[in-house]
Amino acid sequence: MTPPGSSPGSSPGSSSAAAGHFADRLLAACDAKGAPVCVGLDPVFAKLPAVLREMHAGDPVAAIESFCAGVIWAVAEHVPAVKPQMACFERYGPAGVAAFFRIVEEAKRCGLLVVADCKRGDIGTSSDHYAHAYFADEATRCDALTINSYLGADGMQPMIDRAAATAAGVFALVRTSNPGGDALQGLRLADGRTVGEAVADMVAAAGAGHVGASGYSSVGAVVGATKPADAVELRKRMPQQLFLVPGYGAQGGGADDVRACFNPDGRGALITASRSVIYAFDKTVANDASGGGGDWTSAVEAAALALKEDIAGILQEKN
Amino acid sequence: MTPPGSSPGSSPGSSSAAAGHFADRLLAACDAKGAPVCVGLDPVFAKLPAVLREMHAGDPVAAIESFCAGVIWAVAEHVPAVKPQMACFERYGPAGVAAFFRIVEEAKRCGLLVVADCKRGDIGTSSDHYAHAYFADEATRCDALTINSYLGADGMQPMIDRAAATAAGVFALVRTSNPGGDALQGLRLADGRTVGEAVADMVAAAGAGHVGASGYSSVGAVVGATKPADAVELRKRMPQQLFLVPGYGAQGGGADDVRACFNPDGRGALITASRSVIYAFDKTVANDASGGGGDWTSAVEAAALALKEDIAGILQEKN
Repeated sequence: MTPPGSSPGSSPGSSSAAAGHFADRLLAACDAKGAPVCVGLDPVFAKLPAVLREMHAGDPVAAIESFCAGVIWAVAEHVPAVKPQMACFERYGPAGVAAFFRIVEEAKRCGLLVVADCKRGDIGTSSDHYAHAYFADEATRCDALTINSYLGADGMQPMIDRAAATAAGVFALVRTSNPGGDALQGLRLADGRTVGEAVADMVAAAGAGHVGASGYSSVGAVVGATKPADAVELRKRMPQQLFLVPGYGAQGGGADDVRACFNPDGRGALITASRSVIYAFDKTVANDASGGGGDWTSAVEAAALALKEDIAGILQEKN
Repeated sequence: MTPPGSSPGSSPGSSSAAAGHFADRLLAACDAKGAPVCVGLDPVFAKLPAVLREMHAGDPVAAIESFCAGVIWAVAEHVPAVKPQMACFERYGPAGVAAFFRIVEEAKRCGLLVVADCKRGDIGTSSDHYAHAYFADEATRCDALTINSYLGADGMQPMIDRAAATAAGVFALVRTSNPGGDALQGLRLADGRTVGEAVADMVAAAGAGHVGASGYSSVGAVVGATKPADAVELRKRMPQQLFLVPGYGAQGGGADDVRACFNPDGRGALITASRSVIYAFDKTVANDASGGGGDWTSAVEAAALALKEDIAGILQEKN
């Protein structure tokens, strides 16, 4: 797990599983790093730097793990959080899941907060079992988990409760950034709300009892960056929710699209970019068997810095 | 993995990962076993027979795996399918996930179809990664996967496609059996439908291109047994969908509640019971350190037979 061209980050040591309220911890980390941004870890073997694909030929799990570690080391100094995508790991079965949790540990060791992007959702005791997987063990404990809201408030509650008990949080799916999300989340209810707005009200209610000193709840919301018009309305309905905003960069969302996700105080959103950061080397490095992609981490670091400057710029305009 | 009082089932050999269309295979298996029923495998360490808790003290993963194998051996002769609940396994991290897939293999070896109850849902390539985990490897390939519909049709499509390509299927969440499901799925839209009915229409459309010789699609729907009034309407909207009906037994659904889930031809639903079958020994065996619960599998087998007779009785009345 030592890709060439990278070394352990310069801000290690502080475990992110410290005591405190999740929202307070996340906002403090955003302040400390200079912008509310998050790097999504969505490793796909075929897209990795050639040097890693060759080094780990025949062992894709080792390859994606090395890649994620390299990204973590490249960005840890600059951003407050990473968001590993479980699907990319679970694809490889138990070995992939084991790698996921090692990446969680490595990110925490490097001082990053970890949002586990698992979109889990079930009812009652099953919901609690899922929460157990991501919050119970101190070594692999995630700072937050994305959860699916379709099963209703009682489906989310066990995950909300177990998160809160470990100074962690959840981000419930409200409005997703994929084109097809509209077909359901954008439907108009008889009472005038959209389905997404009804879910927002449910999430706001579920989070009301979990508000930290910062005024934000440990129950946050996923709101896609490609729906700026919706974001304005959702921001009103969820003033105490942190918005996890995917879709910035490769998925089509731009700086203007994320503006509406912030509260008037310039806080309340965590902007996530995945492919545009972690695969940034594709534009700067000859990434094939001959080119090698050896200095890929420099491109990743530069892209993370650009992301941070983009978002910091938006917030300065806003204030 | 050899709990006392059980031995490998008497109908092993036929792999359920055979060629053919998922819906056709499932309906044929229901006919062969005499009723469209499924046993849910929701293993919780604290609820296991004392003999297993003692045998595997300190190793809860080994305990739940032994328990599930024992249940499989007890019911394989009588029912067409089992539904392992991933949350119960994922709770224990990678080791639990590994046990999940060993249980999938064991169930297939015993001639059972396997519905992986994972309720996965994401967008685009992430959705495809999840599908890969459950359908790509022939040894651990599941016959069906439960999926979450909140991300819309394009979120479900990669899982639908990869399932269909491996003669497997999906069951998309439409109406869940938990009390809180109403608060979202029961909301009325401006066009008169409920949210659940809108999702039903989406699922019916997604499944239209995947209909087998039986007239049923490999894209099924999860419809809770505790919502009989809704089931009547959903049945009309999804005539080609197989309904996976959880909530029978311990969750409060009764025989009358499931009646509406079947089509007029007496087909189209798979009735699932979990706790009422797998923990049936609690009522017949002294399940503590002194009692031991040694012959727990007899109670499980009897409960599976009772489930089968219940449902077969309903279908006879219906015809």
